[in-house]
Amino acid sequence: MAPWGPSATISTFITLEDVSKASNDQPSNDEHETPVLRIVAEARLKGYDAVCLPITTDKWKQRWSEMCLLPAESSEGDKEAAARAAEAWRLRPGFLRDEVTMSRIDEAEGITVMVSEWLELDAADDWVRHDAEMALQQELAYASYLNIQTAILPAPRNRDHVASYARIVNACLKSLPYIYLSVRLPIYNPSAFQSSPPASALPPAPPSVSKPTLVVSDATTGRLTPSSEGQLNATWEMWDVIRSMCDYNTRLTLTLDLSPALPTTLGVLSKWAAESVRHIFLPSSTFIANVKGYPHRPTIILADVSAGHHSRGGENAYFQYLRHLERTSPAVQAAQRPGTVENFAQGYQDYLQAPLQPLMDNLPSITYQTFEQDPVKYTQYEEAMYRAFLDRPSQDKTIVCIAGAGRGPLVARCLTALERAHREAVVYAVEKNPNAYYLSLQHRQGKEWGSKVQLLFGDMRTIYVPERADILVSELLGSFGDNELSPECLDGAMRFLKPEGVSIPSSYTAHLAPLSSSKLYNEARSTKNERSLETPYVVMFQAVNILSGLPFTNSHNARSATLRFYIPHAGVLHGLAGYFEAVLYGNIGLSIHPHRKDQISKDMLSWFPLFFPFKEPLYLPSNSELQVSIWRLTNERQVWYEWHAESFLSMPSVVASDDPFTEGSFSATTLASFGAPSPMADGVETPFTDTRPFPQHAGGDYEIVKVGHTSLHNPGGRSSWIGL
Amino acid sequence: MAPWGPSATISTFITLEDVSKASNDQPSNDEHETPVLRIVAEARLKGYDAVCLPITTDKWKQRWSEMCLLPAESSEGDKEAAARAAEAWRLRPGFLRDEVTMSRIDEAEGITVMVSEWLELDAADDWVRHDAEMALQQELAYASYLNIQTAILPAPRNRDHVASYARIVNACLKSLPYIYLSVRLPIYNPSAFQSSPPASALPPAPPSVSKPTLVVSDATTGRLTPSSEGQLNATWEMWDVIRSMCDYNTRLTLTLDLSPALPTTLGVLSKWAAESVRHIFLPSSTFIANVKGYPHRPTIILADVSAGHHSRGGENAYFQYLRHLERTSPAVQAAQRPGTVENFAQGYQDYLQAPLQPLMDNLPSITYQTFEQDPVKYTQYEEAMYRAFLDRPSQDKTIVCIAGAGRGPLVARCLTALERAHREAVVYAVEKNPNAYYLSLQHRQGKEWGSKVQLLFGDMRTIYVPERADILVSELLGSFGDNELSPECLDGAMRFLKPEGVSIPSSYTAHLAPLSSSKLYNEARSTKNERSLETPYVVMFQAVNILSGLPFTNSHNARSATLRFYIPHAGVLHGLAGYFEAVLYGNIGLSIHPHRKDQISKDMLSWFPLFFPFKEPLYLPSNSELQVSIWRLTNERQVWYEWHAESFLSMPSVVASDDPFTEGSFSATTLASFGAPSPMADGVETPFTDTRPFPQHAGGDYEIVKVGHTSLHNPGGRSSWIGL
Repeated sequence: MAPWGPSATISTFITLEDVSKASNDQPSNDEHETPVLRIVAEARLKGYDAVCLPITTDKWKQRWSEMCLLPAESSEGDKEAAARAAEAWRLRPGFLRDEVTMSRIDEAEGITVMVSEWLELDAADDWVRHDAEMALQQELAYASYLNIQTAILPAPRNRDHVASYARIVNACLKSLPYIYLSVRLPIYNPSAFQSSPPASALPPAPPSVSKPTLVVSDATTGRLTPSSEGQLNATWEMWDVIRSMCDYNTRLTLTLDLSPALPTTLGVLSKWAAESVRHIFLPSSTFIANVKGYPHRPTIILADVSAGHHSRGGENAYFQYLRHLERTSPAVQAAQRPGTVENFAQGYQDYLQAPLQPLMDNLPSITYQTFEQDPVKYTQYEEAMYRAFLDRPSQDKTIVCIAGAGRGPLVARCLTALERAHREAVVYAVEKNPNAYYLSLQHRQGKEWGSKVQLLFGDMRTIYVPERADILVSELLGSFGDNELSPECLDGAMRFLKPEGVSIPSSYTAHLAPLSSSKLYNEARSTKNERSLETPYVVMFQAVNILSGLPFTNSHNARSATLRFYIPHAGVLHGLAGYFEAVLYGNIGLSIHPHRKDQISKDMLSWFPLFFPFKEPLYLPSNSELQVSIWRLTNERQVWYEWHAESFLSMPSVVASDDPFTEGSFSATTLASFGAPSPMADGVETPFTDTRPFPQHAGGDYEIVKVGHTSLHNPGGRSSWIGL
Repeated sequence: MAPWGPSATISTFITLEDVSKASNDQPSNDEHETPVLRIVAEARLKGYDAVCLPITTDKWKQRWSEMCLLPAESSEGDKEAAARAAEAWRLRPGFLRDEVTMSRIDEAEGITVMVSEWLELDAADDWVRHDAEMALQQELAYASYLNIQTAILPAPRNRDHVASYARIVNACLKSLPYIYLSVRLPIYNPSAFQSSPPASALPPAPPSVSKPTLVVSDATTGRLTPSSEGQLNATWEMWDVIRSMCDYNTRLTLTLDLSPALPTTLGVLSKWAAESVRHIFLPSSTFIANVKGYPHRPTIILADVSAGHHSRGGENAYFQYLRHLERTSPAVQAAQRPGTVENFAQGYQDYLQAPLQPLMDNLPSITYQTFEQDPVKYTQYEEAMYRAFLDRPSQDKTIVCIAGAGRGPLVARCLTALERAHREAVVYAVEKNPNAYYLSLQHRQGKEWGSKVQLLFGDMRTIYVPERADILVSELLGSFGDNELSPECLDGAMRFLKPEGVSIPSSYTAHLAPLSSSKLYNEARSTKNERSLETPYVVMFQAVNILSGLPFTNSHNARSATLRFYIPHAGVLHGLAGYFEAVLYGNIGLSIHPHRKDQISKDMLSWFPLFFPFKEPLYLPSNSELQVSIWRLTNERQVWYEWHAESFLSMPSVVASDDPFTEGSFSATTLASFGAPSPMADGVETPFTDTRPFPQHAGGDYEIVKVGHTSLHNPGGRSSWIGL
């Protein structure tokens, strides 16, 4: 949850060669009892926070391969001997001493281990996969025995069998209840992720003698030309299958391998921001220029630093450069500077809070105090009132009514604005919270304001106000605009606003965007309350990926909206992000809209966005269209929201084909040329302007095909109601 | 759950004209107190089982329209008066006496009501929709007050706003906890399901004065030419959104409207077999020739019978023809004939049973008795043994071992087969169930078999058998072949089979098919046990739709399979159907494969198929490809299955486009022509022969795009284990 900070963990990757070198070069006066202990000590001296080490040696690879794989040309006798050895191993799996790099608890302390990279957990051959799973269980059991907390798994290599890989990882998570598993994955890697025909092309053989040749694809084939959308998504798609089949297990994380060339588009990178990245694997050969935006404070594993890829600076240069990047990162610097949102939000990132119910509940003083600290919001209000006063005839006495005065921050700003504008006014302050009214407002009236302000105790929806106001000022806005019942309160307050009177704010709009975040999905699920997935939350977003570009506009009077989003890159929809933007007066406003907030009300702290969770994640293909419906509903006592989503693809029209096993069929010619009714193209009511249409295809007929849907957990359940 | 029988309910649809005619024509000596009571009595005299009646009159339509809709040319005064009337109604919704067809509990008895058909629950205009929802709640509350059990809702008309329709239906299901709601839907209806531009094209207006023109599309526009796949799926797709948003509520059913012309392809019809159809709306103008296959014993609502569409036979001819069709239906006749599967399965349709665990549990005698009644299975075994004996040299004494003799049915058949073949044999009968052994086998040995049979008590995996057998006979098969641990048992029994010996069965295969059934999904969910969605069930399928043509073959030794299915018509995947087929000897076999069972072992009763449920239904688009993985897993004490599915579409390659709001972008030319790696095209190991490839598109590059996935509820949880 903590943001990226200058204390990010940097780890060094120790190779088997390093270990064997350390064994051979052991000095006679070495204070360390084993080579591994010496390596770890040396790494710490160089400034590394942690060490990453393979758990097995080449000896184990050799024994396992001899038992479980066999060249096709082996003799029958060799095959039978191997089969017997394998069966004996399967009965009592275990290592010999020289097959592992560590054998003592003190050696393993603080070490992250790399599971044998040559294990093909997604081999096409059932027996290779079975024996790889058994070896994995053995390695992880050994790591657990050494008290190791995290093991990095070899990258999946075979899209066809990634479900088998996922099933095995899930089985390990279930059988080993403490260890964290991290799946090593290049951010993208098209060519290495083909099937492995040599293994799968072998004819089926009886179980105990099936020994196809070992095929280990190299998952780090270096720099590649960026390629089509499908190729760029391939590795993320595998990760999505794995974490989904593991049901978003919180002990399953990602080790992002930055070995392949970085793509030039941020769309491909940003989707990783929504995933639980725990490590970043950074070979010296591929150095990146910017570490901003990696979530969850991952550990960086520096690999291959002694290979001499860069002649100047030596081994330590990489480490020092990373630290330099951290120090100079704008995000890190902002977090250290008081007054910034980044600084204020420390500890709130991705933390789910139930929205306030200021109408139904009387807020405690500490909540008022927190909001009064906002350096921007009240300045904006003062400026809006000031300009409104200036627009009044200078000789007139203005009637101002502050509806919902709280502890008085708007009253004080109102008096300042009047002074600045040289205007006279009668200021009424309405407040329904008895504590705020009797303790704070009356106190301030006596001490500060005197007869300049008239206090009125009661609910603005029903209170009697002695005269109608020229200017009505309220601050009832929630993160989604109307979610703290501003419309319902102002309906009542309109009684004491003159017909030609002015309301501050003069208008506001709600904005919505589809969002992907395994973190928020898991947080919402993990709440004990069974209604945890039925209610929106106030959240400072951090590890999220906004799946589509521009949020849409919904007028304050519309109580429902159907919005469409173009999804350029495949992703998983976990919920909706809700924002608001308000016009206070003229061109003075408040905004938490991610693309406009800095122009409108920079550094405003009072509102985090709203998160509307979905019951089940919805897979969204690349180039799909997402249709979202949201309703604001009400009865006499409550207001609540419901939400729903459907996804669509634009497909070339296909002649409807019949079931293979039923009689009768269509004549192809009667079907080919009809265009299906488009649920998107026919709608006329949605007033957004920035949707990108489906990409245009050359020639042929196209139709819109539905591919999935999801909704909130319990629509109609009204558990997310806001009390009137 | 009961099958279609000759007692299917036939209902008559009474129109408002019928009611008003009955009111005007009331004879002076009428014994019935109200016109409705007379209509109901007359319908019963004609032989109808039930009556369907609109709940409101045209008076209500007129008042609601005047309040809530208003022609654009209305004067301001008219608009304000209407707005005031509407607000008064919204505050206290209620009917006047002449706005409803019934006002007494005795009138409503046994009546199914039709909600006002002109209510646009999916209007594009927020206010029309809001007031339609309010009217619907009022009509349903009134129906509940009259103790009416089922109300039929107007058909959704607007694909763009079907989510709003669904939300409203769900709200009604929640607020009225007893009434059943049935959504009227034509089986398909392309042209009537466009958006309704007149309502939605109006400019937004303030809430209480917004009165767009009423647009009621006629959902029953008569016969239409069959059209493209998308159009054929359109109404089912709306139903799927509705029932999904209502979370498969069991009080939500379908009224299938057969007004439009029936399509000539059964693929479109068969998907409705998997849905909870409660009524079939059958106007006289569209009569169908075959009622076979409608599930759940729906009520047939005959409409419009007095309109004189067919000159001969009069009003009663329709009713009599339906009864005739029922009587002569092959399915109904089979159900009445003893010895058929249809007859045996009465009451078992779609009923979930936990699979037997004959290895871990000792079966009770009643279970043996049930299985021994199978008229086909033991005949097949006898025939297989007979042929195996004939193939033995006539002078040799054959050693036969019956592994798992139970109460002795195979022993008896073996002795008969020996007699028929004129062969001598030593027959060993192995049984581990002490009750079957000591009570049944020993008893039969003493009374019937004498020294011809030698009984051995113990588990075939470990028992000592005095000599090795020429022929080993076992009946350890489960519905999915190996799910009652036949492989594990036979591994042990192989010890006492001669190397050149014969096993009966000689081989068996498991078959899998994707399946859609809201009934089975709900049954599996409703089980109190939280593991109810993690285990396969034995089920006699009834209300299901097999989504893809031919099941695939998996060899008995392979412990996992990845299978691909072409999905011609859009559907929802709820689970997998599992079947087996066994070769006993030569060409004698056993099969529950739906397309081959009648040729191989007709009328065999011992096995219903297996149902593997998925955690979440997966939407499968038309012309998609479904990839299913299933694993048979084992440890020292247990065997269990896990399963997973992913769906794909073949899409024209699209140039990868960047996020609209990030800097940097791809050059289009570098991306356009790469083909993405196909997770399907690259695999080589799956040995099926009948998959249809994606339909071929003319020209252009295509790539395979993932569109969704699902899996069993708790993979790795091993709750579905079978004890060894």
